[in-house]
Amino acid sequence: MALAEPLTLYTAKTCPFAHRVELALAESGAKPNKDFIRYEIDLKNKPEWYQPKINPASKVPAVAFGGPKVPGDQPSPESTKIAESLVLLEFVADLYPDSALLPKDPVLRAQTRFFIDAFSTKFAPPYYAFQSGKASAESVLTAFETIQNLLAPEGFAIGDGKHFTTADAAVVPFFARLEIALKNDYGSFPEGEGKSTWEKLQTEPRFERWRKYWADVKARDSFKATFDEASGLVLVRCFGLN
Amino acid sequence: MALAEPLTLYTAKTCPFAHRVELALAESGAKPNKDFIRYEIDLKNKPEWYQPKINPASKVPAVAFGGPKVPGDQPSPESTKIAESLVLLEFVADLYPDSALLPKDPVLRAQTRFFIDAFSTKFAPPYYAFQSGKASAESVLTAFETIQNLLAPEGFAIGDGKHFTTADAAVVPFFARLEIALKNDYGSFPEGEGKSTWEKLQTEPRFERWRKYWADVKARDSFKATFDEASGLVLVRCFGLN
Repeated sequence: MALAEPLTLYTAKTCPFAHRVELALAESGAKPNKDFIRYEIDLKNKPEWYQPKINPASKVPAVAFGGPKVPGDQPSPESTKIAESLVLLEFVADLYPDSALLPKDPVLRAQTRFFIDAFSTKFAPPYYAFQSGKASAESVLTAFETIQNLLAPEGFAIGDGKHFTTADAAVVPFFARLEIALKNDYGSFPEGEGKSTWEKLQTEPRFERWRKYWADVKARDSFKATFDEASGLVLVRCFGLN
Repeated sequence: MALAEPLTLYTAKTCPFAHRVELALAESGAKPNKDFIRYEIDLKNKPEWYQPKINPASKVPAVAFGGPKVPGDQPSPESTKIAESLVLLEFVADLYPDSALLPKDPVLRAQTRFFIDAFSTKFAPPYYAFQSGKASAESVLTAFETIQNLLAPEGFAIGDGKHFTTADAAVVPFFARLEIALKNDYGSFPEGEGKSTWEKLQTEPRFERWRKYWADVKARDSFKATFDEASGLVLVRCFGLN
């Protein structure tokens, strides 16, 4: 559905934070280059105008909203610039209040936000520590259990599991990239530990709920439309120097 | 205004994170021990039931919402338990959609959330590093400038500055406690650096906008009703062991 004002999403296929926002837009029914402009930023060769005109932090994702209709590489000073992936997930949900991205019930909304907070504070730190060789595989598996315990009994993350929400949009991009990293043993962990960790996630009964969850979100149109394996092979890039 | 379902806030006067939620409830017009139960947790002597029945993380703030009307120290398994101060700020705004806690306009809502994110990532880390003797006073002053640059030209933080929002509720409890810490030179910084930093904040022209902001929020009824200096003198406590 078209928005009342122009929206340009500055994004990069390799960045899981940017992927969050692409998923939310896809779930809201917004079509790239029809309802909004999808502008890919080459993080290895960032355009000169990006930092001064779009995001002082120089990262993706960022959004330009409002102002005149302009090409992505000619941003208008009249549009509002918004950054930070979690801020943008709420923004997309606010722009599309009739989507299922955020439940209507205050308690379910709180659970959606708590789920995202738990992922940011309890899953991401041990996972990145493992990737960079600074934490054990077991700490990652424990983190998977922590997140799994917060999932709805079936379907998507929140409530009765029937609707894909911002909670799903926030975590899916990371699962997509870690699957590729672990399967291919890409990381600073001891050789073989990526593959063996992935094997455990695939076979141990304790991860059964997570496996089903991951299969469900991977089968989702929004996921297929916004992720390609080749980009997932690149190490996480959202800034350009990492 | 009374809520459709019972709400108990587990809180502690000394904890700035819990103070955030008390401010939001006060701004929504909810009266403690009329519209909701305010239950003070003695963090030096936490009740046995708190961790298993209210918050597995054992911190304040936390909310019990729904279920039967019960005394705070006899929580019902039928109520939903919700933790994390920023999740709770959104929850209070969702419970009181007619309050001004969150603007209606999606862009202003995004700016509210971005402001809170900036405080969490750009202000709190250098401030706590300074308090514990691990960062310079100048890094704190720079952090003040960063936040100040995000303030509305006058009044409260967001938009036209006319409304106290969750952005204000998120930062005010920390300014209240740092004023006391700096003025009294409480902290692991070199002796005198607390006082001299406070002096700079009070006198240097570059902090004029922040000074006016801080005077405005301190004069607010919600602040006066929820903060007492004596509690601010205690080092930040939200968990009980720190």
